Amino acid sequence: MTMKELKKRAIEKSPLCVGIDLRENQIPLAISNGTFEVEEHFVAYAKAIVDNTKEYAACYKVQIACYEAYGLAGLRAYARILNYIRSQGEIVIADIKRGDIGSTAEMYAQGHFTGDFEADIVTLNAYMGKDAVSPYFPYFKQGKGAFILGKTSNPGSKDFQDLKVNQTEQTLSQNVLDTIYQWGKECDTGSELPCMGAVVGVNNIADIHAMKPYTDKLFLLVPGYGAQGAKIEDIRTLIADRQNGVVNVSRGMTAGIVEEKEFEQELRRRAQQFAKELLQCINK
Amino acid sequence: MTMKELKKRAIEKSPLCVGIDLRENQIPLAISNGTFEVEEHFVAYAKAIVDNTKEYAACYKVQIACYEAYGLAGLRAYARILNYIRSQGEIVIADIKRGDIGSTAEMYAQGHFTGDFEADIVTLNAYMGKDAVSPYFPYFKQGKGAFILGKTSNPGSKDFQDLKVNQTEQTLSQNVLDTIYQWGKECDTGSELPCMGAVVGVNNIADIHAMKPYTDKLFLLVPGYGAQGAKIEDIRTLIADRQNGVVNVSRGMTAGIVEEKEFEQELRRRAQQFAKELLQCINK
Repeated sequence: MTMKELKKRAIEKSPLCVGIDLRENQIPLAISNGTFEVEEHFVAYAKAIVDNTKEYAACYKVQIACYEAYGLAGLRAYARILNYIRSQGEIVIADIKRGDIGSTAEMYAQGHFTGDFEADIVTLNAYMGKDAVSPYFPYFKQGKGAFILGKTSNPGSKDFQDLKVNQTEQTLSQNVLDTIYQWGKECDTGSELPCMGAVVGVNNIADIHAMKPYTDKLFLLVPGYGAQGAKIEDIRTLIADRQNGVVNVSRGMTAGIVEEKEFEQELRRRAQQFAKELLQCINK
Repeated sequence: MTMKELKKRAIEKSPLCVGIDLRENQIPLAISNGTFEVEEHFVAYAKAIVDNTKEYAACYKVQIACYEAYGLAGLRAYARILNYIRSQGEIVIADIKRGDIGSTAEMYAQGHFTGDFEADIVTLNAYMGKDAVSPYFPYFKQGKGAFILGKTSNPGSKDFQDLKVNQTEQTLSQNVLDTIYQWGKECDTGSELPCMGAVVGVNNIADIHAMKPYTDKLFLLVPGYGAQGAKIEDIRTLIADRQNGVVNVSRGMTAGIVEEKEFEQELRRRAQQFAKELLQCINK
């Protein structure tokens, strides 16, 4: 079961999730020779990232928007990159944040758990409720997993996620986390981990303490480390006790090494450093 | 400006939005001869739908999940179908329901407002807040538009959208509609219509009355007519006074005519009938 295996790797290798959010202006000269051809250069760059970080990373997260932006060529690259990561025995999270009614969710589940775009885990948006998520349950029983958006790390997360609900002090995001956990019981696969984890971004210690009772039973995908401003102390507070999460680094892994000829060594150095920092988070 | 033009067509032709949510098992024998080849058959079927309904429809809505389900071949069909609809001078809504942080939303906006997947209007999910939506504003100024999920028509819409927020009787979906309208003022294009409308599903009259104060200023995309159970009286109550919405019919347009040799005539007959019913909604 993928979530169980992911937890194992997070503890043994490190909680580092390497985000592969490629953008045209990031392609290093060493790969591009100054030109840019979407499919070939994205695939070459992604392979370089995977080859030089897999010693340290629990998993990879591929942001599909970066590929949709380039139309069909981008999505051909996306398909090849997912395939390459899985061919290396690595776990890949497709960051698709899909959310739609049941009959449509069935199509998304088919699209992202089988065929050209097959991933091991997907991210989902539950705004539309349980029938936006339950069509993925049959795939969970076959070993796939999902992270549902709970509390995100962007500034706008306050707009709706922080609203108090049900005439109580509970926020919408806390309510979502509670609900995800309840839904997870229904798609129990006999593992100690639910197949549905949650995306929980961290920006300040007050939020984390408010969130902890709701995150304690869920495996977490934590975005925001590096470019989005989450600090290592915040991450430690969030996942330390439970060894129960992976932490995504996307822009921090590649930013500023566009022109760098020695980018492979730099990728390796950063992955090792992030992994070391994050491993300390769960080992103390 | 597309939203303005859409309103014009909704009044002059009809508020009918024809949903093109193709599935393999729906392809009529007249097109497939019993075989199924994703790209060619989807494109042929979609062209048949457009050619036989455009006399009556204000616009088309293409559900991208149905194409993502078939991987790259599905998305080649998707690109060709969008292109065909626009080449006919018709307005196309890409039902993508994307929602992500600012830097990622920029990539989705690029992907769905330019290039292979260019649409006129997209649907968006605002769970992640304003920075999930504001990257689309520059495209609104160039004439594009969006419908943001407010209250959806599926059973699970009650799970989160009906939660009371802010220690008041206001629901989350009402709060979202209020907020969309406020955001819309910031991307004002000088038209009398905001570039951001809302998706508002209707299932019962009590919900509609509760929603009306929040929908009155927004142009609406109303799903749920036909297969999802919304009744014509409900739709009349929701959009009558303002002539301010389009109503989507997807499954109702094609269901049960898989085996029908005379499917072109049947599409035409249904489109005419739906258009007539819906036009009466706004003309009384």
